[in-house]
Amino acid sequence: MHDSPPEPLRVLGIAGSLRRGSLNRGLLRAAIELAPDHMVITPYEGLRAIPPYDGDVEAEGDPDPVADLKARIRGADALLIVSPEYNYGIPGVLKNAIDWVSRPPRTSPLSHKPIAIMGASTGNFGTARCQLALRQTFHFTKSYVLIEPDVLVVRAAERFDDEGNLRDEATREHVARLVESLERWVRGLRAGAIIPD
Amino acid sequence: MHDSPPEPLRVLGIAGSLRRGSLNRGLLRAAIELAPDHMVITPYEGLRAIPPYDGDVEAEGDPDPVADLKARIRGADALLIVSPEYNYGIPGVLKNAIDWVSRPPRTSPLSHKPIAIMGASTGNFGTARCQLALRQTFHFTKSYVLIEPDVLVVRAAERFDDEGNLRDEATREHVARLVESLERWVRGLRAGAIIPD
Amino acid sequence: MHDSPPEPLRVLGIAGSLRRGSLNRGLLRAAIELAPDHMVITPYEGLRAIPPYDGDVEAEGDPDPVADLKARIRGADALLIVSPEYNYGIPGVLKNAIDWVSRPPRTSPLSHKPIAIMGASTGNFGTARCQLALRQTFHFTKSYVLIEPDVLVVRAAERFDDEGNLRDEATREHVARLVESLERWVRGLRAGAIIPD
Amino acid sequence: MHDSPPEPLRVLGIAGSLRRGSLNRGLLRAAIELAPDHMVITPYEGLRAIPPYDGDVEAEGDPDPVADLKARIRGADALLIVSPEYNYGIPGVLKNAIDWVSRPPRTSPLSHKPIAIMGASTGNFGTARCQLALRQTFHFTKSYVLIEPDVLVVRAAERFDDEGNLRDEATREHVARLVESLERWVRGLRAGAIIPD
Repeated sequence: MHDSPPEPLRVLGIAGSLRRGSLNRGLLRAAIELAPDHMVITPYEGLRAIPPYDGDVEAEGDPDPVADLKARIRGADALLIVSPEYNYGIPGVLKNAIDWVSRPPRTSPLSHKPIAIMGASTGNFGTARCQLALRQTFHFTKSYVLIEPDVLVVRAAERFDDEGNLRDEATREHVARLVESLERWVRGLRAGAIIPD
Repeated sequence: MHDSPPEPLRVLGIAGSLRRGSLNRGLLRAAIELAPDHMVITPYEGLRAIPPYDGDVEAEGDPDPVADLKARIRGADALLIVSPEYNYGIPGVLKNAIDWVSRPPRTSPLSHKPIAIMGASTGNFGTARCQLALRQTFHFTKSYVLIEPDVLVVRAAERFDDEGNLRDEATREHVARLVESLERWVRGLRAGAIIPD
Repeated sequence: MHDSPPEPLRVLGIAGSLRRGSLNRGLLRAAIELAPDHMVITPYEGLRAIPPYDGDVEAEGDPDPVADLKARIRGADALLIVSPEYNYGIPGVLKNAIDWVSRPPRTSPLSHKPIAIMGASTGNFGTARCQLALRQTFHFTKSYVLIEPDVLVVRAAERFDDEGNLRDEATREHVARLVESLERWVRGLRAGAIIPD
Repeated sequence: MHDSPPEPLRVLGIAGSLRRGSLNRGLLRAAIELAPDHMVITPYEGLRAIPPYDGDVEAEGDPDPVADLKARIRGADALLIVSPEYNYGIPGVLKNAIDWVSRPPRTSPLSHKPIAIMGASTGNFGTARCQLALRQTFHFTKSYVLIEPDVLVVRAAERFDDEGNLRDEATREHVARLVESLERWVRGLRAGAIIPD
């Protein structure tokens, strides 16, 4: 007899930048490549279509792009957020999407969702403040944010090639460790009945 | 002889919520009413039209709503930000507008701009975390954020009427003090040559 | 046959204030009373004796009060931190103790330790900023901080009697919920092999 | 006729680390050396003697080391805080001193005091989170924290010699710019009557 292969894990990857050449989109692509066979990370491509959050609009029903994002989050075992830092904080574009899907609190698909966070910056700080702000926000939504490893890619220009692909081997290993840690996190939270199976 | 009246002060008021009945829009209206004669607070009504920030779009030139907001900020002596808190942070809609006008850093109209912050919540915390996050962001933009008084309106439903107008006298006095303090702040920063006249 | 009673759970309770009449010490006493039979919350009484953190002193070996606190944390299944907020942050006295026991990072007893946080304030904000700062610090130490319920006791003077005992029934239920949630958290993290058994 | 020399400026420099070889103490020494002739930065050497903050002790009168620190702050035109980051936050030793001198709020010597912040780390982040936490705390105390330049010295081991003296020329220029900026800040706040002369 032998072990059956693990249940496949579906992860929704959300890049916080809309720019085509974004290093953070490249960092997400690296995670997709480095994920083990039984983990599928699907990049979310609808961020641009999310309208500005407005409680009056919400009262008439979620706009289609919001309903679609909520369904994708609900259907995912975990989220992987890969974001630049703007102005010592979360990009407004990304935060606006979080604001929509956090509503209403009791039925938000973010509630009890396992989440991993990464980020890359061209400078020295590797999105340190943005990641803290994301953790603060995901505490409000009662999400389960992975605690290690922290992946803060500093001086990213040295580590990515001209097509925005991550080439630096040490950083790739770091990303691979985060992806594996996310899998243990999801399976552990379920095995411990902290989140539903 | 007598003193000439003070130079009029133009303040751009930005509410962080798009909802028509927003308490924070009501709080901004209160500030407009309570401002002294020589201070004109104009509410910014274009937030909904600001597109999602995208560096590729920016590279082709600011979209009209962004150019308009930058011009309004440049033409104002100060900003008054009145915002709800979403998910322990800044509403994405508001942060997205800040992300646009913060660019490029060297010529951003936020640089050295005096800013006052207020907020109201129906619960107990009066946007405490959002205000801290705004201060953190406006530190990055090198703006001069007023340090007192803090205006955090808690349990706002008790203080506003059904039309969303601020009725509570103590809170109105608090708002009036903030507006006066903002004026001294702007005039003081100029008199001290901390910001250009 | 019948279920055996659950393994007893030992929790170290740490109040962030040294003041005898501290509301936060009273809040910790309430948790001790409200804990189920098989959970023993022991208040830590040594905070005052922890010397100021100094890397040169540390290099010569942990002072006795530090070694004692490390042993108590190691011997506990979880921590319960009950702290006032000082100056929008963590009381220095409490942070200094955390700084000591966080060292060295690889063998810190805080690493992977389950932690719950509560706080009370006489004003409106219920230690909101201190709790966020504690979460940020305990992210660095790779501790597992409970995500719900948040217990932020506002306007505490209305809820405690003159001896500093928590009398407000709704708040007592809130504290009881936190204590129960902490138990599920510890047992879940172990059952899921997220922390060692 | 000629300009009279500027009034001398007295700055109290406070290092957040007690370690003799601390890089942050070295960074403070660099600021002392680089200050212009008419600015005297005096290092505060009493941090170790500040007792743990306790409201009951305070009620009986400030302990001597606290009274001494309050007097030094009152006698200074500005503070220069140079601190490491511990556990994504302010060193408890430093925060404890701030907690004492912040009391009571109405007469605290921190109120309206101009303050500059710097920090150095051996790693990549240059005390980014500690500086944000200090800004948050000094907002509570209504202090006037300098907004630019930010001095976050990353990978400090490359920049200091074995005696802990700052050798890196670019960093020394950065420190010199901060010191000059602090002087303009103090003189500007006074000229603008934002703080008393």
